[in-house]
Amino acid sequence: MHRTKVRIVEDALDANNTIAGANRADFDRAGVTVVNFMSAPGAGKTTLLERVVTDLPGVRVGVLEGDVEGSMDADRLAHLHVPVTQLNTGAGFGGECHLDANMVRSAIPALPLEEIDLLLVENVGNLVCPAEFRIGEDARVMVSAVTEGEDKPLKYPLMFRACELVVLNKVDLLPYVDFDVDRFLYNLDAVHPGVERMVVSARTGEGVDAFREWLAAA
Amino acid sequence: MHRTKVRIVEDALDANNTIAGANRADFDRAGVTVVNFMSAPGAGKTTLLERVVTDLPGVRVGVLEGDVEGSMDADRLAHLHVPVTQLNTGAGFGGECHLDANMVRSAIPALPLEEIDLLLVENVGNLVCPAEFRIGEDARVMVSAVTEGEDKPLKYPLMFRACELVVLNKVDLLPYVDFDVDRFLYNLDAVHPGVERMVVSARTGEGVDAFREWLAAA
Repeated sequence: MHRTKVRIVEDALDANNTIAGANRADFDRAGVTVVNFMSAPGAGKTTLLERVVTDLPGVRVGVLEGDVEGSMDADRLAHLHVPVTQLNTGAGFGGECHLDANMVRSAIPALPLEEIDLLLVENVGNLVCPAEFRIGEDARVMVSAVTEGEDKPLKYPLMFRACELVVLNKVDLLPYVDFDVDRFLYNLDAVHPGVERMVVSARTGEGVDAFREWLAAA
Repeated sequence: MHRTKVRIVEDALDANNTIAGANRADFDRAGVTVVNFMSAPGAGKTTLLERVVTDLPGVRVGVLEGDVEGSMDADRLAHLHVPVTQLNTGAGFGGECHLDANMVRSAIPALPLEEIDLLLVENVGNLVCPAEFRIGEDARVMVSAVTEGEDKPLKYPLMFRACELVVLNKVDLLPYVDFDVDRFLYNLDAVHPGVERMVVSARTGEGVDAFREWLAAA
């Protein structure tokens, strides 16, 4: 009697991770580091990128802009003369609320991978689903603004767990809002103990040097 | 020869709308008006509700709190002695980024429909998917904060279309942020011409009277 040996392939159904791995391999072959930026809408991702894309000595930067529709952020960054590629998640009504590996894969032919060292991916503004989809990145950065409240790590814990760096932005507004930085960091440590964190104002430039150094070393 | 007449049932596959209709019928039978509040995370929905739930003369208010997890907002509102029901979209990792009709249906047995006239539903903070799922509500309110930027109607147009009222919140912060109210309203009219709009500060109470009147008349 023949016995057929069944080989268990774990995670076989997770197409997203399979495609993320293929993206990862393409990025590695081109020697490009990829950082995935996630946040709620309006947390200041684009302003933060504007502060750094032209100011990383020796690092050639490209940007992949994810939006449901339109190219407003890409237009803002294109003025800075860095290569920007727009990736829209849907046309007209509907449209996905996050980037996934397959969407990023479809954008790879449009990316100038041979001309850049660092690809900054601006995900769709959303505190839930982007955390569930790897895209083949090296690191994930979560941007949270003081205007959103101290409770966000507790309300959207997966997002604050699924990242290597948390940037607390808009600290220039601290005198005008009810936000206790220590309380936020306490809540952050409750869901992701010890995760690297920075306190910045993309608008004024406060604290951005440390973020720039982190990116250059990424 | 017999000919079988085929009756076309349109939208037969849209289970969400079917269930939303069933919710709607239950709310109607109980004489309860339902308003669905949508916004990005941290736009101030809960603070806005805190301003009005105990201050609508002759209207008995209940709240249904939608969150991925936890009950922080429900706890804030329960202090005000209004009936609050918590509806979580997922446990642990994962969890949906919006409320849908079926989730709300599962909460109906826990709602004190005979004791209230107006049910305020606080959706999950998200500017994409909540707009795609009717829950059986009478009206939808979109809350947008000046700290999020003037571009939000253009970047998340479905959300600003799928509502009967847009509340622009946090106007107490206007002196400290780069936000032009006229530009925001221009962008709003580009995606939803003439939609009713209010300019408020839930924190200071500015403009909240008009919102209270709108709710009382809903």
